[in-house]
Amino acid sequence: MSRQKNDTAKSSNSLWGGRFEGGTSDIMEKINASIGFDKLLYSQDIAGSLAHSEMLEKIGVLSREDAAQIRIGLMQIKQEIEEGDFTYDPKLEDIHMHIESRLTEIIGEAAGRLHTARSRNDQVALDFKLWIREAYDDLDDALKAFQEALVDKAEAHHDVIMPGFTHLQSAQPVTFGHHMLAYFEMFTRDRSRLQDARIRMNESPLGAAALAGTSFPIDRFMTAKALGFDRPTANSLDSVASRDFALEFLSVASICASHVSRLAEEIVIWSSAQFNYIGLSDKFTTGSSIMPQKRNPDAAELCRAKAGRIIGALSSLLIVMKGLPLAYSKDMQEDKEATFDAADSFSLIIAAMTGMIKDMTVHKEEMRASCDAGFITATDLADWLVRVLKMPFRQAHHVTGTLVALAEAQGCDLDGLTLAQMQSAESSITQAVFDVLSPESSVASRISYGGTAPSEVLKQVKSARDRIID
Amino acid sequence: MSRQKNDTAKSSNSLWGGRFEGGTSDIMEKINASIGFDKLLYSQDIAGSLAHSEMLEKIGVLSREDAAQIRIGLMQIKQEIEEGDFTYDPKLEDIHMHIESRLTEIIGEAAGRLHTARSRNDQVALDFKLWIREAYDDLDDALKAFQEALVDKAEAHHDVIMPGFTHLQSAQPVTFGHHMLAYFEMFTRDRSRLQDARIRMNESPLGAAALAGTSFPIDRFMTAKALGFDRPTANSLDSVASRDFALEFLSVASICASHVSRLAEEIVIWSSAQFNYIGLSDKFTTGSSIMPQKRNPDAAELCRAKAGRIIGALSSLLIVMKGLPLAYSKDMQEDKEATFDAADSFSLIIAAMTGMIKDMTVHKEEMRASCDAGFITATDLADWLVRVLKMPFRQAHHVTGTLVALAEAQGCDLDGLTLAQMQSAESSITQAVFDVLSPESSVASRISYGGTAPSEVLKQVKSARDRIID
Amino acid sequence: MSRQKNDTAKSSNSLWGGRFEGGTSDIMEKINASIGFDKLLYSQDIAGSLAHSEMLEKIGVLSREDAAQIRIGLMQIKQEIEEGDFTYDPKLEDIHMHIESRLTEIIGEAAGRLHTARSRNDQVALDFKLWIREAYDDLDDALKAFQEALVDKAEAHHDVIMPGFTHLQSAQPVTFGHHMLAYFEMFTRDRSRLQDARIRMNESPLGAAALAGTSFPIDRFMTAKALGFDRPTANSLDSVASRDFALEFLSVASICASHVSRLAEEIVIWSSAQFNYIGLSDKFTTGSSIMPQKRNPDAAELCRAKAGRIIGALSSLLIVMKGLPLAYSKDMQEDKEATFDAADSFSLIIAAMTGMIKDMTVHKEEMRASCDAGFITATDLADWLVRVLKMPFRQAHHVTGTLVALAEAQGCDLDGLTLAQMQSAESSITQAVFDVLSPESSVASRISYGGTAPSEVLKQVKSARDRIID
Amino acid sequence: MSRQKNDTAKSSNSLWGGRFEGGTSDIMEKINASIGFDKLLYSQDIAGSLAHSEMLEKIGVLSREDAAQIRIGLMQIKQEIEEGDFTYDPKLEDIHMHIESRLTEIIGEAAGRLHTARSRNDQVALDFKLWIREAYDDLDDALKAFQEALVDKAEAHHDVIMPGFTHLQSAQPVTFGHHMLAYFEMFTRDRSRLQDARIRMNESPLGAAALAGTSFPIDRFMTAKALGFDRPTANSLDSVASRDFALEFLSVASICASHVSRLAEEIVIWSSAQFNYIGLSDKFTTGSSIMPQKRNPDAAELCRAKAGRIIGALSSLLIVMKGLPLAYSKDMQEDKEATFDAADSFSLIIAAMTGMIKDMTVHKEEMRASCDAGFITATDLADWLVRVLKMPFRQAHHVTGTLVALAEAQGCDLDGLTLAQMQSAESSITQAVFDVLSPESSVASRISYGGTAPSEVLKQVKSARDRIID
Repeated sequence: MSRQKNDTAKSSNSLWGGRFEGGTSDIMEKINASIGFDKLLYSQDIAGSLAHSEMLEKIGVLSREDAAQIRIGLMQIKQEIEEGDFTYDPKLEDIHMHIESRLTEIIGEAAGRLHTARSRNDQVALDFKLWIREAYDDLDDALKAFQEALVDKAEAHHDVIMPGFTHLQSAQPVTFGHHMLAYFEMFTRDRSRLQDARIRMNESPLGAAALAGTSFPIDRFMTAKALGFDRPTANSLDSVASRDFALEFLSVASICASHVSRLAEEIVIWSSAQFNYIGLSDKFTTGSSIMPQKRNPDAAELCRAKAGRIIGALSSLLIVMKGLPLAYSKDMQEDKEATFDAADSFSLIIAAMTGMIKDMTVHKEEMRASCDAGFITATDLADWLVRVLKMPFRQAHHVTGTLVALAEAQGCDLDGLTLAQMQSAESSITQAVFDVLSPESSVASRISYGGTAPSEVLKQVKSARDRIID
Repeated sequence: MSRQKNDTAKSSNSLWGGRFEGGTSDIMEKINASIGFDKLLYSQDIAGSLAHSEMLEKIGVLSREDAAQIRIGLMQIKQEIEEGDFTYDPKLEDIHMHIESRLTEIIGEAAGRLHTARSRNDQVALDFKLWIREAYDDLDDALKAFQEALVDKAEAHHDVIMPGFTHLQSAQPVTFGHHMLAYFEMFTRDRSRLQDARIRMNESPLGAAALAGTSFPIDRFMTAKALGFDRPTANSLDSVASRDFALEFLSVASICASHVSRLAEEIVIWSSAQFNYIGLSDKFTTGSSIMPQKRNPDAAELCRAKAGRIIGALSSLLIVMKGLPLAYSKDMQEDKEATFDAADSFSLIIAAMTGMIKDMTVHKEEMRASCDAGFITATDLADWLVRVLKMPFRQAHHVTGTLVALAEAQGCDLDGLTLAQMQSAESSITQAVFDVLSPESSVASRISYGGTAPSEVLKQVKSARDRIID
Repeated sequence: MSRQKNDTAKSSNSLWGGRFEGGTSDIMEKINASIGFDKLLYSQDIAGSLAHSEMLEKIGVLSREDAAQIRIGLMQIKQEIEEGDFTYDPKLEDIHMHIESRLTEIIGEAAGRLHTARSRNDQVALDFKLWIREAYDDLDDALKAFQEALVDKAEAHHDVIMPGFTHLQSAQPVTFGHHMLAYFEMFTRDRSRLQDARIRMNESPLGAAALAGTSFPIDRFMTAKALGFDRPTANSLDSVASRDFALEFLSVASICASHVSRLAEEIVIWSSAQFNYIGLSDKFTTGSSIMPQKRNPDAAELCRAKAGRIIGALSSLLIVMKGLPLAYSKDMQEDKEATFDAADSFSLIIAAMTGMIKDMTVHKEEMRASCDAGFITATDLADWLVRVLKMPFRQAHHVTGTLVALAEAQGCDLDGLTLAQMQSAESSITQAVFDVLSPESSVASRISYGGTAPSEVLKQVKSARDRIID
Repeated sequence: MSRQKNDTAKSSNSLWGGRFEGGTSDIMEKINASIGFDKLLYSQDIAGSLAHSEMLEKIGVLSREDAAQIRIGLMQIKQEIEEGDFTYDPKLEDIHMHIESRLTEIIGEAAGRLHTARSRNDQVALDFKLWIREAYDDLDDALKAFQEALVDKAEAHHDVIMPGFTHLQSAQPVTFGHHMLAYFEMFTRDRSRLQDARIRMNESPLGAAALAGTSFPIDRFMTAKALGFDRPTANSLDSVASRDFALEFLSVASICASHVSRLAEEIVIWSSAQFNYIGLSDKFTTGSSIMPQKRNPDAAELCRAKAGRIIGALSSLLIVMKGLPLAYSKDMQEDKEATFDAADSFSLIIAAMTGMIKDMTVHKEEMRASCDAGFITATDLADWLVRVLKMPFRQAHHVTGTLVALAEAQGCDLDGLTLAQMQSAESSITQAVFDVLSPESSVASRISYGGTAPSEVLKQVKSARDRIID
């Protein structure tokens, strides 16, 4: 039933029976070994060991010769892993033991000196932090590319008029560029969250040892610096016991994914024949095995769904961590798969969404035609009554409602009413009212800061480009 | 960053950069292809195709020759997969396409006739239901073995006295057998839930085709019967659009896992030096890389943690399914990994827990000694006042409180007080009260149905054995 | 920041007798008191006390006089509560203490005898089970009414043709009645889940006392029967420690809510001007404070959202219960608010959805018009090639794809192609092919069991009515 | 089944003007009205209206007289609400309508001018942001007080020795002060997260109007400044459509609550008779209705449980927001209850935890005695072998394992072995080894940065005090 094991021949129909015939130690091996996923941490583990051994050499715990051997051995192991020449064995449990064990094979006794003044507890915290830090950096780059795609699209379509929706009902006309910039704002905050989180977690746990620190005269500032950390952590128990850095990663991912899922939902709706607001490129759509004409927005749907998966990962790790006594409990081994899987999904949906936005064609005629239904400039009428006739807003609202009802009864839009009909509801209305009843005049008028007017959108495009930081 | 891909050599430090250099179609392939996980469904897919082709032959859509070829080809593919001779290719997206494509290689044109009157939509619903049904059956067996381990332990220790806790404070003495039977009840309800769920989902979606049914004169009752279903589903849209069978699987798993996690927590606490109520076998414990004396209850901790993982999977799929319009959306492709992963965890924790319970040694002296602190028979004293002196319960509670305070002040337990001291709080107390103040008499007295008395525990052990169904 | 600011002066005496010198702090009172929500359990608590006192009388623990007084007192309290004449006080913590305290005021010392042979632990488990059982019964009635509304709608519109969607793209024509019946199937399984859960939880915990049972010769079968339970629970620890009955309630609610959310999403989409498939009644829509023309599907949106709330409640209680040692921990006090809130939301969304479905007008012209785009009968063409020309399905798929591309290029639908054009892709095609290319003939042909043909829908309507159980 | 039965008679006129003929049903009123919870936002709503009216006056949309009347009317309403003289009516839906409606009663027509150039969409976003910002400020103060309590406790017990645990097994001795500081670090990061979040959300949505901005020449910078925001939001669609500020609040709360839950779990375990490491004050414990001797750590258990509730709220809102198209959907009304409830729980658990820590008595003898079991200085022995004998760590680990086994066989601790016995495992061991085998020497030696040595703890206490910011 395992995802990893299904390549092996299986003659029994039983899903587990056969796997556990060997007795309970098989179960223990299966539930306990983490090498199946923590092998992802090999380069972080080796980087940590290199920094640790250099420090041990500096403080005299390692001889120059041993340190050199360790360095050479570790580099060889890295190469072996990257070239696929490394053998994994569940009995060696985790990546730390694999590397140490192989190091012993290569350099002998000196390998046994590397683990001085550290423990798997600080080692795994270090490796995992380094991994998440790299993930943050890669994701930040990906989000930047996504920001750029959104701003480009906004600029190109700054004056394309579409209905702005509330409750999926046409509310007021907006510009497509403005709509794209709404997402720009969300993802800008997402990047900001990501960057704050990266700063917060950038403290080195190395040297916390098992949980109490060590009696060796280690230099934690040196290893912290060598590994790009701002400082060492200030409490050894906290260093090995805490995983809020992973929880925050998953929170950042979940919130960002919720934004992605909203854009994905819109893409799915816009791609329907009934809306037909956009066209997706073939790259991000698929056909059907039975319906040859279909062009399905699969990538968008998967982006929407992956949000659920990422939120599930956040839930999962919050549940795992809840109520654990200090310092390290084995429960915490569950931190990595949830995080790796969420990071994978996160990077995929940003990449897919960036591609979809870039490739998307915008059907401006259909968008504009959609504005002709639904009395979409009713608010402009009400605002005109307030602005020009000085009517209180609530009264203007009432008059507008009456005119909408009249137009509905006549089967026309608001600008299809005659002035006389207008005046039947409010005698002071003048011909000038018709100037505000087109979608074009409506959007052009919304020049309040952050409003949907094309002129304002261009200003915000410029500001947005300035706000995309490296 | 993917769990599956990390064996390949990677020279770049970038986690994703390198992977997506090939352009966006790589992203689409990665986000869209399901073969990485749905290959688990190969045997279900082949079983479904065999049933479908036999039915097509019977109704005359397939010739006898084509049907025979298809049968032979499918059996060959099954063998190839099980012997590891089958090539997977992400471009073929999913297991259905892999098998159909290979079938075409083997038998030619006839392969193209197999997909008549069905679609990937009903096919994947079928495969997934078959898989979950098998998982239910395997898990039911596993839970049965677990029930037996619990009852055996309960019988063997039906008269071992330990503190019964509320709020992790000693409350009243109970028997260890009674405690084991509490879990028996929980897992018995879990099995009942599982069996109800299996019955509910046992309807065949095959023949629903893409979503609307088919114009071919298919016999859905025939394929349903051949595949062990109770009947075909009654609505083709529902058949391809619904995944409540997977949600219910995850609910059943989550509730059961919450029970496992409680027992796991107790095992962790009982294994502490401070409690020392039990000993775990070496099989289910591990040592420390730095603390040679440690014997850590890793398996129990992982059982506890996996509950979080399973609950996360449930959340994940509930979120994915929420708000999806009918019939099939690609979001639903996320159903399988969540379910496979949860089923894997579920089976592991039941197996690990069964092993731990079987191997566990019970430290009855330590358990009994724990009863000597904490005025654990205070309730017995209060009950005696009610039963013998006919005191209202609330008054008896008050008198008992006074005597507990007195004993606390004297530094003795309740039976360390003299009769005179007893009578200082309530003059009617007689020497007979001392008969109820030992933990032994306390547990022996609790013979109400389902109570903790050893005699009652033995009765419930007998009843439990009768209630373990096959 | 608290919603219920509790500024009342703190008096010195707490509930737990005289032993506490300090008195609880305001914070403690706020975090600890449950009366704010468990007062909902008053009628269950009184029913339980009535059954308990009758049993105590029968076994001679209560005198006839005391039992009569208790009965009269409890009935008076019930009346006081229902008439709003009952005073709540956070210092009395919970509903159990409120009722007992008031009973003491009314009948004096005899009230103190009621708590003999029970504890708040079994009492609250009992009350909560009784409450959930009633909720199940109410919800089952509500779901039955919903089933009926769906079947009525299905029958009335069994031959209304609309596009069947996958990926929100038109796939094949279906009937609206068929679509309604898809939901009928989902909610039928939901009712089945609910009923199974109700049976499973119908065991009385009363008499489990604090956790160990009791030395009083109580008759748990008598109280179980009096309260409508099938039997008493078989283990006293399990009786007070388990909340899987609440978890299962929340699972049932979550899965059902996910179905509701899907229908809600469809209603929102169908209500858009772009789809315009249905009209909602004024009862279930709202207007806008600024956009007078809006008719917003608020009720549908809230139904969709409440699914998230219910799933959140399920997560919440699963998290609370995970890893709790036996028997009772105060954490479990969190069980009730999650459940009450979810039950409230659950009953609201079923009621709102039933009302929306009943009131909904179906725009059959718009639905039918939607079928004229998107080559919606492409599958029918492919099936015709298979059925009539005996072409292998995969080849038929290919030919159909060619013809769809041709029609797309011509700007016509499939039946707009000439026979010659058809034959350019496949020379054997005959005039007969045009018989299968209309949506009407497409749906009429799908007479496989559970298919979308109007004739099949009527059969399923009849079967559905038979399957609506009381 | 509803908690808030709304039995009030339904009158015919609803809020949205005359266009609705039917009137809303009871169900609709129940599912739709938010006044039951959003009345919490009254002061924010009034503050926003004051700022808005001042700005409207400045730009000439409101006359000086109208603005003055509005100001006076709003202040009167605020007073009425705070003095309990305000009438709520579900028919008026939400707090915005309540206040506007009451304002109309008080000042007449001028009230109708207040809603010019805004909408309920930007109004509710504003109110909710203001509420969360206040919650952040209150919680930041509460966390600061909690930090101080932890540091005080750490300082007072900087040299109290207890076992440091991993897997709830004694690992190495640590100091209680060090343990307290571990939590100080976690809550310091939690405050940092909170402060980052507060900065990120401090942008004013007022003036976004319904979704598109407005044609009135409003000054959004003026209202932003008046309300304490750093700037106005840059996109009107985003302003009304986004709730990541609430999601981030719930994330911050969830992560912090997970830290609280860990401390709570430790308090529960430490309070058990078997550990007996601490005593809780009467203020934060309760007794039992049936077991007079109990002193239950209810507050700690509830703190642990509330973490589940808060995480459930986060899940809930993430689910609600997932996949919502822009701009506003009614689903978003669910944002407030989840947030209010989580904020309530959050503030309660911080307050309760602060109280518990302050009041807690530390049983240093019991903690110290606990160190005498479990070979707790085995690591010190191994480190001595490395440091003094220059043995490779892995070999030292092996020798230590041999000596632990020997001591276990002898029934003594490591320092109970003779030098000869020591030398039987490794002949180079000298008498000096015994200097490192006491818990006191062990902790004293761990002077690495962030280590557990009392001297290091005092340094970290000093640094911690510097790091507690206002």
